[in-house]
Amino acid sequence: MDELQRDYPWTKSPLVSCGPMRLIALSKLTSEVSRAGGLGFIGAGSDCSALVAELESFKGLQTECRILADVKDVLPVGVGFLLWAGEKLLMEALPILEKYKPAALWLFAPSHPDQLVQWTKETRRVTKGMTKVWIQIGTVADALEITKSCQPDVLVVQGNDAGGHGLEKCAGLVSLLPEVDDAVSALCAAQEIKKPTLVAAGGIMEGRGAAAALTLGASGVVMGTRYLASPEANIAKGYRDAVLKASDGGVTTERGKLYDTLRGTTDWPLRYGGRGVLNETHHDAAKGMSVEENKRLYEQALERGDDGWGEKARLTTYAGTGVGLVKEVKSAAAITKEVREDAISVLKRANSSL
Amino acid sequence: MDELQRDYPWTKSPLVSCGPMRLIALSKLTSEVSRAGGLGFIGAGSDCSALVAELESFKGLQTECRILADVKDVLPVGVGFLLWAGEKLLMEALPILEKYKPAALWLFAPSHPDQLVQWTKETRRVTKGMTKVWIQIGTVADALEITKSCQPDVLVVQGNDAGGHGLEKCAGLVSLLPEVDDAVSALCAAQEIKKPTLVAAGGIMEGRGAAAALTLGASGVVMGTRYLASPEANIAKGYRDAVLKASDGGVTTERGKLYDTLRGTTDWPLRYGGRGVLNETHHDAAKGMSVEENKRLYEQALERGDDGWGEKARLTTYAGTGVGLVKEVKSAAAITKEVREDAISVLKRANSSL
Repeated sequence: MDELQRDYPWTKSPLVSCGPMRLIALSKLTSEVSRAGGLGFIGAGSDCSALVAELESFKGLQTECRILADVKDVLPVGVGFLLWAGEKLLMEALPILEKYKPAALWLFAPSHPDQLVQWTKETRRVTKGMTKVWIQIGTVADALEITKSCQPDVLVVQGNDAGGHGLEKCAGLVSLLPEVDDAVSALCAAQEIKKPTLVAAGGIMEGRGAAAALTLGASGVVMGTRYLASPEANIAKGYRDAVLKASDGGVTTERGKLYDTLRGTTDWPLRYGGRGVLNETHHDAAKGMSVEENKRLYEQALERGDDGWGEKARLTTYAGTGVGLVKEVKSAAAITKEVREDAISVLKRANSSL
Repeated sequence: MDELQRDYPWTKSPLVSCGPMRLIALSKLTSEVSRAGGLGFIGAGSDCSALVAELESFKGLQTECRILADVKDVLPVGVGFLLWAGEKLLMEALPILEKYKPAALWLFAPSHPDQLVQWTKETRRVTKGMTKVWIQIGTVADALEITKSCQPDVLVVQGNDAGGHGLEKCAGLVSLLPEVDDAVSALCAAQEIKKPTLVAAGGIMEGRGAAAALTLGASGVVMGTRYLASPEANIAKGYRDAVLKASDGGVTTERGKLYDTLRGTTDWPLRYGGRGVLNETHHDAAKGMSVEENKRLYEQALERGDDGWGEKARLTTYAGTGVGLVKEVKSAAAITKEVREDAISVLKRANSSL
């Protein structure tokens, strides 16, 4: 786990990150994660319009914070992009990456694998390799192809339990991570290339999940859903309350394209879907309600504010299957520290009980 | 983890078990698992017709084996039943359980929760509590309901990555197991009842998955798919070869009811489906082939023997998403020992790297 602390020297081992949740993980959340010795990713998504403002805001917050003040050269934060947005996004992103040099770039969901190669190459060029490249995958085949074509610094291995967008067909971390580790290790040994560091995402909510990821081959973990229950996440109270209330997420969440359809975010490549808590929107769709009517009711629900969320309501509540483990609001810094320390003590306890 | 070794004194910690795979886990496989310090479950399924012969065969094999010879009172093996088969199965099973007193009984897939209560009560009565009761669950709600109604000795927590039958809607172990642990612990504390021991199943293939399960709250692990690649598993060479060949199981396996439909095993309650490796049967069904035609081709494939299995063939290849981690045939005893010892060294390594 030394590698990550060498690349991100303000972080502590094991690395705890917040995923680049679009519109949710902004400067306020990521600065708290990084301040607590983690690595926060700003979710730029498919659009650079707010990114400069968020990076400036991050810089301001960083100045207030002595822990990060020692970090030179790079900005102690990551930025995540959705690559299906196309070449325009890359062209907009490059000058920003060059100017701000975030410590890491998170690439996800290309419509064509060549986009990953182009983003990796261009980012390394404009930042002189200072911005490390993280690429998210969900299959062994993608892990191998991307390791060959991009040699990323980090592969983010996302299992099926993840909230929000991921592959519609995907294994859970318990089987996916070891198989990726073995396959990528063999490839890198055969081709004499540097093996990417593996970081795990998907269903990790607290110390036990984080400890499990470490035993499965990860050097660090990423969480999304858990950070939704921090005051620094940029989400409506109604959404946060729905996350706190949900439990038994294997039954009460589902991955699919319904919300993308209703919200008009239909540019996602076919193999991705979003996992969220089931509500009236799903139930009505399952009963055969037309997309038009469901869309109309969705837009009506938007006007209800916080009451638009919940099991008996309609708005998107992206969350992973571990949502039932999220039971209280804590600061993002406290979450980061707690998960890191709990992972260590869980491993210690499991080890000494044998 | 002491509890399991107290109840099954020939076993070593952490407990490694083979699941009660119907027609596959018989005396030959289970005796090797138990001999190596694990706990093998004979898969009686929905039918007692071969069970006495298998238990007699197990007794014979046990006599040859000094490790098990010290165990008195109970037979150092488990037996698993599919409860949807109904009351007739219970009536047939009870005298056999009374006579042979297997160390554990594994109950799965009732068509009504009352069946679990009845099986638990009757088994404890006829075996004077000597046969411990294991109940398989896949949701937090079921874990709570069954703990209250049955107070089983063991809850087998099965995640979505499992091969063969499981819940159609189910979380992976990384989120399911900690949530079950917390919920069941709280229930047992509130009701002042004994907490069942948790054992994990679903996607565990080797030491890393087993170590992960221990960090997530399990005291032992169950494997199915991994044991398919042992000479003692009662499966065709074609099936075994298809398991060895498959990889990237998140993409190449799928859970569903297709095989049950084609094979006529349609008594499974609606919420269960079987996970298997995708082949022509699936592809044709997805393209709209009728059940009748698919069934006809399935029956034709049965006549092809070992060639009936494989990606380009048609026969059922139940396997979990971790099937790509199964790469060679080893004896069931070697698998049992290896997974147990690797789990310990994986935990030790993860712990010391922090």
